[in-house]
Amino acid sequence: MKLDRRLVIKILEEKIKSEGIVLGSDILKVDSFLNHQIDPFLMSQIGQAFAEKFSHENISKVLTIESSGIAPALMTSLQLQVPMIFARKHQSRTLNEEFFSASVYSYTKQTENQIAVSKRFINPGDRVLIIDDFLANGQAVQGLLDIINQAGASAVGVGIVIEKRFQAGHQLILSKNLPLVSLASIDRFEDGQVVFSKQGETSHVN
Amino acid sequence: MKLDRRLVIKILEEKIKSEGIVLGSDILKVDSFLNHQIDPFLMSQIGQAFAEKFSHENISKVLTIESSGIAPALMTSLQLQVPMIFARKHQSRTLNEEFFSASVYSYTKQTENQIAVSKRFINPGDRVLIIDDFLANGQAVQGLLDIINQAGASAVGVGIVIEKRFQAGHQLILSKNLPLVSLASIDRFEDGQVVFSKQGETSHVN
Repeated sequence: MKLDRRLVIKILEEKIKSEGIVLGSDILKVDSFLNHQIDPFLMSQIGQAFAEKFSHENISKVLTIESSGIAPALMTSLQLQVPMIFARKHQSRTLNEEFFSASVYSYTKQTENQIAVSKRFINPGDRVLIIDDFLANGQAVQGLLDIINQAGASAVGVGIVIEKRFQAGHQLILSKNLPLVSLASIDRFEDGQVVFSKQGETSHVN
Repeated sequence: MKLDRRLVIKILEEKIKSEGIVLGSDILKVDSFLNHQIDPFLMSQIGQAFAEKFSHENISKVLTIESSGIAPALMTSLQLQVPMIFARKHQSRTLNEEFFSASVYSYTKQTENQIAVSKRFINPGDRVLIIDDFLANGQAVQGLLDIINQAGASAVGVGIVIEKRFQAGHQLILSKNLPLVSLASIDRFEDGQVVFSKQGETSHVN
């Protein structure tokens, strides 16, 4: 079953409003359906929405980072009928020549992680779609782009479940001329409430 | 599309034989389709196979541990139409009273992790199905059972994609009279090759 994408976005926004918890100036906790407990029906619809938006991009791999990116990336890859890869995070472990690796700084946790993808799974010629649950400062996407670049593959777009448009990641991706689809786009937090961007879903796809 | 469960097991065994890499005496690396790169079609079939086996158990939640358990657990929960929860791993972080937590020792990595699940997501009365990618010594399952117990909920079964039957986890689960379904059951490694259990899929379901 596939719902219309507009309806999926509506459901997602309603879930964020009713279950999301705003913490401080820039953190949104949505652990009841997105990144601790997961609503599999909504996640399936999210995957179908991304697959529809990127269906003409001839994608060969879907790439994300553990752990929260796995669910939306898996559902997208199922629809696109291509493999999904999740980059592994390591705080310090010495990486070897079997892996492409990149550094990702987390502003939330104030930690630097190495992320790694086996060289066997991304090859020159691959057309890679990046999927993640959140877009904030764009550090995770930046790290994945770095890995795609090392592999000699092409990044063909970025699909984000929830973007905080007021942080740097949104502009960072657009500045690279990368197609960006953010299903829920948050303009700002106001009195502990989420205010969505007026223009709705971010969609910069050719 | 749903394949017959016997065929799913056959495909899984063939994938293990052709792509799995045996390391040392007890490690099987299957990162090409199960826990780094993921085959979404196979994962979907695995989810349907678990859902079929546990369809009469009136399950209300599917529980796993990040990261490798997320994909099979998500696909199972989608079929069962119930929420999926993945326990978070923390090497040291101080946990607070918002979480149920347990210790999980990893023989492979020789590290002790705390796993945690928010108290909001498992309640008394919940009937919980545990799903994981691998069963070796059963430490992960043990930790999840501990959390289910703290919540006053019931564990109704365990679904495992690949079990190493020669390690302690298999007997540990059966000794608790818990229904266990292991799709691929490995009897032993011989000359770097995988030998599957003669009786095939482990299935101890009422």
